[in-house]
Amino acid sequence: MIEIERKFLVKNTDFLKGQKGERIVQGYLSSDPARNVRVRVKGEQAYLTIKGISNASGTSRYEWEKEIDNVEAQELLTICLPGVIDKTRYEIPVGKHVYEIDVFHESNDGLIIAEIELEDEHETIEKPEWLGDEVTGDVRYYNSYLVNMPYKSW
Amino acid sequence: MIEIERKFLVKNTDFLKGQKGERIVQGYLSSDPARNVRVRVKGEQAYLTIKGISNASGTSRYEWEKEIDNVEAQELLTICLPGVIDKTRYEIPVGKHVYEIDVFHESNDGLIIAEIELEDEHETIEKPEWLGDEVTGDVRYYNSYLVNMPYKSW
Repeated sequence: MIEIERKFLVKNTDFLKGQKGERIVQGYLSSDPARNVRVRVKGEQAYLTIKGISNASGTSRYEWEKEIDNVEAQELLTICLPGVIDKTRYEIPVGKHVYEIDVFHESNDGLIIAEIELEDEHETIEKPEWLGDEVTGDVRYYNSYLVNMPYKSW
Repeated sequence: MIEIERKFLVKNTDFLKGQKGERIVQGYLSSDPARNVRVRVKGEQAYLTIKGISNASGTSRYEWEKEIDNVEAQELLTICLPGVIDKTRYEIPVGKHVYEIDVFHESNDGLIIAEIELEDEHETIEKPEWLGDEVTGDVRYYNSYLVNMPYKSW
């Protein structure tokens, strides 16, 4: 299927106080943006996700995802490209959408990204006061890019 | 799981006369030998397979495989690395083992490879008269290598 989403920086984390996040650890078998292969462990669940190249505006991208066995995911993480992404995800409803807020740890400490999934590229969205600059389509903020070029090295 | 197998060239195809083979078309999302990701369509079935680096002798390799939807596999083939492998596979029982014979087509026309899967690296195997030189561990004969360097270009 095709995923449509927009991505923003986040100005502060005050709005996350008291919210419950979920830890995500993920690695890449391919960091090629045209055929990205990701292994993700999210709490007790694990997923294998394949993404194609995005369209010109960076909003839309082919995505294939399947849930996989957690133990097998741990095995697959050991053969991923060096460097894993470790982050905590919060889901914050705003209007009729949900913002997914990723607070990065380790070598990407300090980076906070908000993503919003849309039905249509031109859909109107509510922008809460904590939302920062839009970075949709900026490859530097791709998680697969952060594996090689972590935020703290920028 | 860990796959143990040996690979050989094949001297002639007389022994395949009258045998029924199955067409295999496969592409790669990653051709990295340490984290190989393959999409395979074999008759009506389709599979996603991930392989790790092989051991020093080339006989043993981590392998993860799941059957996937045939239509989804066709979608995934469109985002694979340029070049697909097109071959016909025959399964030929010899003694207590089964040789998988791959007869390659298109840009790998002329190449025929026999693979035998083992329980143990040092297991004794019967070698029929049509079996040629062993090429176990020779990366040139990896299907993922043939995508970039097809046999006819050698």
